[in-house]
Amino acid sequence: MTHDELTTALSEVRDNLERGILPFWLERGIDREFGGYLTCFDAEGCPGEDTDKYIVTQTRMIWGFSALYEEYPEERIRKAARQGYEFFVRHFWDPRHLGWHWKVRRDGTVLDDGKVVYGEGFAIYALATYARVFGDAEALSYAERTFDLLQIYCADTLRGGYFENLEPDWTLSAPGFAAGDRKSLDIHMHLMEAFTALAAATGKEIHRRKLEEVMGLILRHMVDHENGCGLNQFDIDFRPIPAINIRRTWNAERATGEVVATPTDTTSYGHNVELGWLLNRAADTLGWERTHFNGLIRKLDDHSLAYGFDHELGGVYRDGVHCGPALVFDKEWWQNCEVLIGYLDTYERTGEEKYFDAFLRTWRFDKAHFIDPATGEWRQLLRRDGTPLVADLGNPWKAIYHTGRAMLECKRRLERMR
Amino acid sequence: MTHDELTTALSEVRDNLERGILPFWLERGIDREFGGYLTCFDAEGCPGEDTDKYIVTQTRMIWGFSALYEEYPEERIRKAARQGYEFFVRHFWDPRHLGWHWKVRRDGTVLDDGKVVYGEGFAIYALATYARVFGDAEALSYAERTFDLLQIYCADTLRGGYFENLEPDWTLSAPGFAAGDRKSLDIHMHLMEAFTALAAATGKEIHRRKLEEVMGLILRHMVDHENGCGLNQFDIDFRPIPAINIRRTWNAERATGEVVATPTDTTSYGHNVELGWLLNRAADTLGWERTHFNGLIRKLDDHSLAYGFDHELGGVYRDGVHCGPALVFDKEWWQNCEVLIGYLDTYERTGEEKYFDAFLRTWRFDKAHFIDPATGEWRQLLRRDGTPLVADLGNPWKAIYHTGRAMLECKRRLERMR
Repeated sequence: MTHDELTTALSEVRDNLERGILPFWLERGIDREFGGYLTCFDAEGCPGEDTDKYIVTQTRMIWGFSALYEEYPEERIRKAARQGYEFFVRHFWDPRHLGWHWKVRRDGTVLDDGKVVYGEGFAIYALATYARVFGDAEALSYAERTFDLLQIYCADTLRGGYFENLEPDWTLSAPGFAAGDRKSLDIHMHLMEAFTALAAATGKEIHRRKLEEVMGLILRHMVDHENGCGLNQFDIDFRPIPAINIRRTWNAERATGEVVATPTDTTSYGHNVELGWLLNRAADTLGWERTHFNGLIRKLDDHSLAYGFDHELGGVYRDGVHCGPALVFDKEWWQNCEVLIGYLDTYERTGEEKYFDAFLRTWRFDKAHFIDPATGEWRQLLRRDGTPLVADLGNPWKAIYHTGRAMLECKRRLERMR
Repeated sequence: MTHDELTTALSEVRDNLERGILPFWLERGIDREFGGYLTCFDAEGCPGEDTDKYIVTQTRMIWGFSALYEEYPEERIRKAARQGYEFFVRHFWDPRHLGWHWKVRRDGTVLDDGKVVYGEGFAIYALATYARVFGDAEALSYAERTFDLLQIYCADTLRGGYFENLEPDWTLSAPGFAAGDRKSLDIHMHLMEAFTALAAATGKEIHRRKLEEVMGLILRHMVDHENGCGLNQFDIDFRPIPAINIRRTWNAERATGEVVATPTDTTSYGHNVELGWLLNRAADTLGWERTHFNGLIRKLDDHSLAYGFDHELGGVYRDGVHCGPALVFDKEWWQNCEVLIGYLDTYERTGEEKYFDAFLRTWRFDKAHFIDPATGEWRQLLRRDGTPLVADLGNPWKAIYHTGRAMLECKRRLERMR
C-alpha cells in the first residue's frame, strides 16, 4: 500500500458517498407524497413503476440515513431518517399480532402482513441505530419489542437458532416454498448484525447474550471451517441441504444473469467476507480482542481470493462450490460492496498487504463499472467484464444499505490508516 | 385387578382426598391474617415457625385449589384459590424487572427476588390452571406474560433448552452453586407440565409449539433410553454431569435421611414415573395417540419396578444408579404419590396388570405409613420399613401439590375403570 493509493482511494470513496450515494437517495429516495421511501430507479435514475414498500428496504433507508447522520450531522439527513421512521411505525406495525408487516402499498395500505425474520431483523437494525444516533426512546422501545417477539415466536428451543418464516399471526409457516422448516446462514447472519446494533444501543446483558448465542450458532453449524466458507440452507436440525427458492426472498422474485443448469450447493464470496467483518463488528461491540477472529477471517477472505476473485479485472464473482472454482461469474453490486469493507477490515486487523490489494482492485473495478457516472449510485448486476446485465440503480431489495454502508465503513477505515 | 381391589382403593383414595388432604389445607393452609398460604406444619399438623412464602408452594396451593374446584365446585374452595391468587399477584410480581419473586415474608415483604425457572414454571402452571378453571382473563394474561419472559430471558438459542437460574434482573447467574451454567431434567420436566397447562388454557399454536419443543428436548437429551431412566443434571451443552447442590433448591436447604458417601450420578424412580405420565398428559393435550408413549412409559415404569420398588413392603425408594440396585432406600412422600398416578396411567394405556399391582402395593404402603391417620395429610420422609424420619406434614416445598394431585388423578382413573 502506498500513500498515494490510500489517499486516492479515500478521496474517491468520499466523493462517491458525498456527491453520489447520499444526494441520490436524498433527492430521489424520499416519498414526498406519502412519506417513507421510494426505492425503484432505472439505469438513468428515473423512478420505476413499482412503488410498493417492503420492510427490508424501508428499514435499510432508515438505517442508512441514521448511520450517515453520525458522519454528517446535517438537518436534511435527520429529516430524511425521521420521516421514514414515522411512515414505518405508522404503517408497518401490526397492532393486532404485533411485529412488522412484510409489504405495504405506497400509501401505506397493507399488502402482505407475513412475519419474516429477515425483515424483522432489519427492523431491529434500523430502529436500534436510529434510536442510538438520535437518542429516540420510542424507537428503542420498538427495537426491543421486536427483539422480544423474535425470542417468543421464532426461537427454536429444541434445536437452537430461529425459525425464519412465519405467518401473519406468528404461527410457523408450512414446509417447502414457505420454508417454515428451513434455517439459513443469511438470516442468522443478519440477526447477528441486528443484535449487534441493539446491544450497542442498549448495552443490556440480554441483548449481548443473544448476540453471543447467534454468533456461536453460526460458528458451530453454519460455517465450513475446513474450506473457509459459509454454508447456505439447513434443515431445522442444521443439517446442510441444497438451497431452494423461498417465498418472500429476492431470489424467488427475480430471474436475471447466469443460471447454473444443475442445482448445486453453493457458497457466496461476498456473503462470506461480509460475515467476517460483521463477526468482527459484533466482537468489538462485546469488547472482545480485536484479533479474536483473525484466523477465521483470513480463511474466509482467502477462500474468496482463491476461488471467487477476478485476479485479472478485479471484483468478486457471484457463487461457487465450497472447494473449487466459481460457477457463476456475474458480478453483483452488494457482494462488490461488502468485500470492500471485509478486505479493508482484515487488512486493518492483520496488516497483511494482500487484503489491501484485494480491496484496491475491487474498488477500481467497482468505480469503473458499478458506479453510474451520472448519478453515483451503483448498478445492480454486471457480466464479469463489467457489461451491465441489470443497470437499474434501485430495486425493491437494494436501497442505500450496501453502497452507503460500504463507502461509510471504507471511509472510516481509510481515514484511520492515513 | 379384582372388582373389590378397585372399589376399595377408590373409596380409600376419595376418603383421603375429601376427608384428609382437602380439609387439612382448607383449615390450616390459608393465612387468614395476611392472605396467601401457610405451608409448614409439624407431625401433629401444628403450624411451624417458618412462615416465609415461597413461589413454589404458593403456586402449588393456587394450582391445588383450582384443580380441586374442578372436581368439587364448592365456594369455599374457590375462595381459597382466589385469596391465594390475589396475594400472589400483589406481592410476588416484580413490577421493575417483571416476572415473579422467589420468596417473600409472611406479610408479603420481598426477601429474595431471584428469577428461578423452576418457580416461574410453577407460576405458569398455577395461573394457567386457575385461569382455565375460573375463566379469569387476568390470570391468563399473567401466565402468558410469564411464558413470554421465559422465552425472552431464559431460552438458550444456541444449544436449545432453557437456562434455569437467573438474577433478579434476569441476567444469567454465575456458574457453580448459582448454577447459571447447568440444565436439568427436573426443571425441563416441570416446564413441560407448565406449558401443558398453558396450552390447555389457551389452545395457542405458540404454546403448543413450545410444549412440543420441550418434550423433544427431554426425549433427545435427558432420558437414558437404554436403561429406561431419566438423567439428572447437564452442562449447558446437555452433556450429563454429576449432580451438585444448587442454590434455591430443596436439596441444598435440607440434610435429612440417608446420605451416599461417594457422590454418584443417580436417577429418581418417582421422577421417572412422573415423567412418564406427564409426557402422556402433554401428548393428550396435543391430541396425539393415547398409546404414543407406551414404549417409553413401560421402560420407565419397568426400571422403577426392577430397581426402585420395594417388592416386600410396597412403595419406591429414593434414588439409585442408572442400571443396578437402589442406593438410597428411604421413601419420600412425593415419589410415592407420583408413582401412584404413573402406574395407574400406564395400566390404563397398556392394560398390563403388573402396573395396577404396583399401584395397589404402593397405595397400601402409603396408606399404612405415609398418611397421618389423625389429619389425612402425608408425612414427608420415612425409612424403608415406614418408620418416620421426618413426620412433618408441611414444609416450604410440599403443600398440596403431590398429595392432592395424586389423589385427584387416581380418583379419576379408578372411576373410569369401574
